[in-house]
This record gives sequence, structure tokens and C-alpha cells, in this order.
Amino acid sequence: MEKTIRILGIDPGLRRTGWGVIETLGNSLKFIASGTVTTDGQMDLASRLRQLHDGLSEVVHQQRPDEAAVEQTFVNKDAVATLKLGQARGIALLVPSLAGLHVSEYAPNAVKKAVIGVGHGDKEQIHMMLKVLMPKVQFKGSDAADALAIAICHAHNRGANRMMKAALAG
Amino acid sequence: MEKTIRILGIDPGLRRTGWGVIETLGNSLKFIASGTVTTDGQMDLASRLRQLHDGLSEVVHQQRPDEAAVEQTFVNKDAVATLKLGQARGIALLVPSLAGLHVSEYAPNAVKKAVIGVGHGDKEQIHMMLKVLMPKVQFKGSDAADALAIAICHAHNRGANRMMKAALAG
Repeated sequence: MEKTIRILGIDPGLRRTGWGVIETLGNSLKFIASGTVTTDGQMDLASRLRQLHDGLSEVVHQQRPDEAAVEQTFVNKDAVATLKLGQARGIALLVPSLAGLHVSEYAPNAVKKAVIGVGHGDKEQIHMMLKVLMPKVQFKGSDAADALAIAICHAHNRGANRMMKAALAG
Repeated sequence: MEKTIRILGIDPGLRRTGWGVIETLGNSLKFIASGTVTTDGQMDLASRLRQLHDGLSEVVHQQRPDEAAVEQTFVNKDAVATLKLGQARGIALLVPSLAGLHVSEYAPNAVKKAVIGVGHGDKEQIHMMLKVLMPKVQFKGSDAADALAIAICHAHNRGANRMMKAALAG
């Protein structure tokens, strides 16, 4: 019998990190919770990273996910922004790993493809499809919505990976 | 009476993170310990960041520093390398902050200036000056040496900051 898997998706950012938790059983998706961890821009960098660590640790502790997925950072041309994002992303990968979870990474276009069917699209399309896929979904803001999309992407891909393994074992 | 301050310097990197611990009392510097935390390139990124977290946490636990300093990452033109370094740097800033330490950041040329007197110079000059400044110094490799240089930079600058505060306070 298949087991319900609880997935934590994380959309990392130094100022705002979105998180979303869903459950998947076979092809079904169920919304569990979502939110945003914010850090205080007036504080020094190390303290902000600690705020992010503490906020995400609380989410992991309260939601008890089985697996985690983090968006692969968009590497833009602004090196300072890339470095900032990298630092926040390091914490987003670390926290679920410290809790013993396997952490998968997905490129932004893979996330969009999993949710809206194509590798490009705007935020409105993602928000709309989240409501179609999970009628009881609740999120405030795009960071939490993106995190839910990342969790859905992992729900799809872990299934494909599983089927491929089964076929190969076959 | 002035108090001896134990400083942890960290030179972050995903593959190798150097660390160095010194003690400062007034203008004196004393070598305490140094080393390198390495991560396994065969493992996934989240697991490597956890290795880095665990290694640095052990250093903080064993060495009990009072303050920490991390080198400001050189932002080069390779965005992928910048992102990787950013992720490791996030962990290097987080770990001492989780232990309640204040974490200062210094640019590479400030570190060089503190150790060799000018803002540019090669690794050999840094290694030589470390031996002049702290005759009992021991380090294996440039990452640990750079971490000791960062700790020395903080020892110099924290004194200047303290004197400035005292002067302003009258």
C-alpha cells in the first residue's frame, strides 16, 4: 500500500523565504500549510541568517515533513544579489538536512512545468493552477505560492523517479 | 583590567573551509589552533552544507571563542562559483551566530592590510607574517592560514573600534 508523503517546498531569499507543505498519495495532492519567514533588514547578515534558520527550523519541527525540495537559484548577472541569495539558500538547504530529510533541488522552469504545464509563465498562472490542483490551498504572497509550486514539482518528480526505478527493476 | 579575547576566524568555501583561533590581549596576539573543514564532493549539496555545519559547530564547541570574523567573499564574474561560495558562506556566518557570538565581516584587502601592511600580496607573504606575528603558529594549507589572518584583522579592528567608542564617550 502506498504511503502518504509530506513534502516541504522552500523558495529561499534573504529578506523573505517562502515555505509550503503538501501531502501526496499516488497522484493526489493535498494542501497542508504555507507561510513566509522574514528577516530584519536592520540586523547584521549573520543575525539575519540565524533568523532564517530559526524560522525554518520551527516550520520543520511543527510540520514534520518527510522530504524537502528547494528551488535552484536563478543565477542573474548581479553578483552581489547572487551572493546574497546563495547565503540564504545555504540555510534553506541546511535546515531540512539537519532534520535528516533528503533535499531535492529543481530549476525554476521545471517547477513551472510541473504546475502550469510549460516552462514559462507568470505568477498569476501559478497562483491560479495552485487553486485548481489543491482547491483548499491558502497562501499569502508569491514566495509562499512559489514554495507550494516547488513542493508539487517534487511530488511529480519523485513519482516519476519511483516508476523509473520500478520499471528498471522490472 | 583588559580581558583576553578569543577570536575565531573563518575562510569559507564549499570544498574547504579554513578556521583559525587566536587570543588577543591589548596588542598581543597568541596562536591557539587552526584547521580545515572539508566536505565530500560526491555528496549532494544539502549534505555537504550539513558536513560544513557539523564541522564548524564542533570547532566552536571545542574552542569556545568569544567573537568571530568571516572573510567577505570575493565576488568574481563566475555566477555559479559565486553562488556556491555564497551557500558555504551562509553556513560560516550562521554557526557562530547560533552559538551567540557576534560575527564581523572583513574584505580580503582589509585582511591583507592587517597582516602584511598593504592591501595586496601573495599567500607566501601572509604565511611569513603569520610566523612573525605569532611565532608558535601552526597551520596546514592556505585556508587555515587565511582564517588566522582574518582573526588577526578582527583583533586589530575591534581594538580600533573600542578606542573610537571610548574617545567619543569622552
